[in-house]
Amino acid sequence: MDQIVSFCKRRGFAYPGSAIYGGFANSYTYGPYGTELKKNIKDLWWDTFVRQREDMVGIDGDILLHPRTWKASGHLDSFNDQLVDCKNCKARLRADHLVEGQLDIECEGLADEDVTKLIEENDIKCPKCGKKDFTPVRKFNLMFETQMAKTHSASSGQAADGVAYLRPETAQAIFLEFKNIVDTMRVKLPFGIGQIGKAFRNEITPGNFIFRRLEFEQMEIEYFIEEKDWKSQFDAWQKAMQQWCKSIGLDSDKLHDYEHPEEKLSHYSKRTVDIEYDFPFGRSELYGLAYRTDFDLSQHEQFSKQTLRIHDEQKGEKILPHVIEPTFGVDRTILALLCDGYTEEKLDDGSERVVMKLSPLIAPVKVAVLPLLKKDGLPEKAREVFTLLQHFGNIEYDEGGSIGKRYRRQDEIGTPVCVTVDHDSLEDESVTIRDRDNMQQERVKISELAKKLGKKYFSQ
Amino acid sequence: MDQIVSFCKRRGFAYPGSAIYGGFANSYTYGPYGTELKKNIKDLWWDTFVRQREDMVGIDGDILLHPRTWKASGHLDSFNDQLVDCKNCKARLRADHLVEGQLDIECEGLADEDVTKLIEENDIKCPKCGKKDFTPVRKFNLMFETQMAKTHSASSGQAADGVAYLRPETAQAIFLEFKNIVDTMRVKLPFGIGQIGKAFRNEITPGNFIFRRLEFEQMEIEYFIEEKDWKSQFDAWQKAMQQWCKSIGLDSDKLHDYEHPEEKLSHYSKRTVDIEYDFPFGRSELYGLAYRTDFDLSQHEQFSKQTLRIHDEQKGEKILPHVIEPTFGVDRTILALLCDGYTEEKLDDGSERVVMKLSPLIAPVKVAVLPLLKKDGLPEKAREVFTLLQHFGNIEYDEGGSIGKRYRRQDEIGTPVCVTVDHDSLEDESVTIRDRDNMQQERVKISELAKKLGKKYFSQ
Repeated sequence: MDQIVSFCKRRGFAYPGSAIYGGFANSYTYGPYGTELKKNIKDLWWDTFVRQREDMVGIDGDILLHPRTWKASGHLDSFNDQLVDCKNCKARLRADHLVEGQLDIECEGLADEDVTKLIEENDIKCPKCGKKDFTPVRKFNLMFETQMAKTHSASSGQAADGVAYLRPETAQAIFLEFKNIVDTMRVKLPFGIGQIGKAFRNEITPGNFIFRRLEFEQMEIEYFIEEKDWKSQFDAWQKAMQQWCKSIGLDSDKLHDYEHPEEKLSHYSKRTVDIEYDFPFGRSELYGLAYRTDFDLSQHEQFSKQTLRIHDEQKGEKILPHVIEPTFGVDRTILALLCDGYTEEKLDDGSERVVMKLSPLIAPVKVAVLPLLKKDGLPEKAREVFTLLQHFGNIEYDEGGSIGKRYRRQDEIGTPVCVTVDHDSLEDESVTIRDRDNMQQERVKISELAKKLGKKYFSQ
Repeated sequence: MDQIVSFCKRRGFAYPGSAIYGGFANSYTYGPYGTELKKNIKDLWWDTFVRQREDMVGIDGDILLHPRTWKASGHLDSFNDQLVDCKNCKARLRADHLVEGQLDIECEGLADEDVTKLIEENDIKCPKCGKKDFTPVRKFNLMFETQMAKTHSASSGQAADGVAYLRPETAQAIFLEFKNIVDTMRVKLPFGIGQIGKAFRNEITPGNFIFRRLEFEQMEIEYFIEEKDWKSQFDAWQKAMQQWCKSIGLDSDKLHDYEHPEEKLSHYSKRTVDIEYDFPFGRSELYGLAYRTDFDLSQHEQFSKQTLRIHDEQKGEKILPHVIEPTFGVDRTILALLCDGYTEEKLDDGSERVVMKLSPLIAPVKVAVLPLLKKDGLPEKAREVFTLLQHFGNIEYDEGGSIGKRYRRQDEIGTPVCVTVDHDSLEDESVTIRDRDNMQQERVKISELAKKLGKKYFSQ
């Protein structure tokens, strides 16, 4: 994992956030290559699940929604961690982690007082300073809170009515707009609404690089169905998610379905399956698929006092649709792809190279165009070639350093193919293409280059 | 303007946010067509300014940054509005609006006490209730504030050290990563860093539909230069911005350069030019271009105690680059395009139609594929055609209603071309294409369709 983190910083995929100020709560900034990778993932997802499907539409909602949204969704009341502060060293700790780290007891479902008692009666020590002096266990809501139109002088004594929350998931914005979509888009069941956007969770234990962050991005679908179809729709979405994993090139041996046991399901879910990935730090959730029943729509009906029912042609009556929810974490997709792709290879000549084996569909640089030398008209010719290939996406022009070093640099960031312009190119209007994975080279006419690369690397 | 707002809701471009809960502070959710339009604008911008330029790279940073960032940038101390509350009706008002609405005086630059005195001494009335009983004028910071890892029981008495802010602009994340980019991306002056993302301002006077929102999206570039080049670089960027406006199809007659007079420049800027657009509510800022000198980098040097200087080959010394900043509002671009494109036309037969005249490059639906009837194998044939055209972007398949109504629907949302599949198509493998703007129809072989449409509508 350390290798991936340091690679990401060194090669412009992800920098530790706010680093010049000493860092900030496990935040990261995607560098130029990370940003391209992220954009390619999001674009491919949008094409696959929204644009290319007749039964899907997309929306783009706000991070700040009406606070009542979170009352209805249950987040205000139950999206909590239990927490204690060490009075001695001021460390703030998750009570469940504290207890479960020192006793063979599960805290899930226990009341604050019971966990407090557990801590007191079992001589539990602060893992930071070793003392046994904790505050009582308190609820800790994971939503970031903010104040609308707050004045400085009234900052602490203000009433709660100006409170707003940063959304902890993108899903709810979809439920809020369900009726608008039905009224304006002529959709009929089954249909889905997709959204890509940021969500925020005020965790005290973020970590594992970009795996768990306070601020993260989700690609989420709420798929509205008739209740009777839930099993077949669940299966269809499970297959669609597996197909997605395959299309972005994730190693299927590292992917595992985890079926949540019935007693551990969230209160709104009748079935949940996670797609887990074997990260370097262990097997963990990559994506989730949940059957949420009609929980959300019926909660919003109740709290908004508006009907969200739609007309069912077959039954001739109004029904409240049920929901299948496939969720894809963008940051976790990036991390899985980087872990999957990172390869150190020993070559025949004894040297070593690092190759990032990313699918050409999502690679941050699609093609690198390299003039053999920085003179003799080669840069000009290379720039012509650069222009010819721009419809593939992000193309890099690189004229610095020896050709071998430039190949290695492109291998490291996962560029599937390099195009080299040499002196012969000026005569024969041909270039050399060099494959990232097998390092084989081939001479291709410039007039046939785009077609050749398109067919070999960029056709879905 | 009301026409545009109601059109946007009716045709799935933008819905009032959190509407089922009575709305929320001028928030809007982009509907399916608005989301596609927004994505097309952002994608085209990214292609134009980041991918296709050798001198540009992109990043994707967090909304929550280290709070010291905003001390260095000046936002913590001076990103304020002056504000009063009416003690009678509790209305919260901007003091400058209040005074300038009733007196011929400019409040800019006046101290809180002086504005308070102005209000008291001039018998200024609350525009809501008519009373003259105000709180003293107070500073009101426009950044949304939140607490990291806050517990419920400690919500009001907590120290300020867990405070964080939602970024009020995307620019600062770029300055924080300046050194990382220099160290890992082998850039040299002049070069730029681009970013697209959300920013937040806790305004009490949002409005004009999506023009001024609490939460908005920016496309921003910080372009690093040598000081001596600032004038020529400023001019080059001004031209590049004008070219962008042209490429997305904005009416040049409605665009105006506004040169900020020297005495009104922000403290960090030596020159600022806004590109203004004639919105229905008046001429207002669409984009901005500012020469920020080395203000930001030098502030971050000072507050972080780290050098941000880079080696200048010519001078053989370390220099702090200067910065040109072109900023593009995404939401304002959408609004300008919709205002520009919205057209009511009287046709020769006396009927009327609404046409949204958007450039094919950014239209939310690129092509609509319409089977003439919902039977006789026409839907199947139409779906074949649908698949052939998907590489253009978002293609819509629509089989509902008369063909005339479907044309009108596509005209309204700005689809540049419709493709109709009829009974003859099954025999002659041809379809009819119908142009949005001149409504002329033409018969085209299916085998030549993609090429024909690509050439006529989608080549840049």
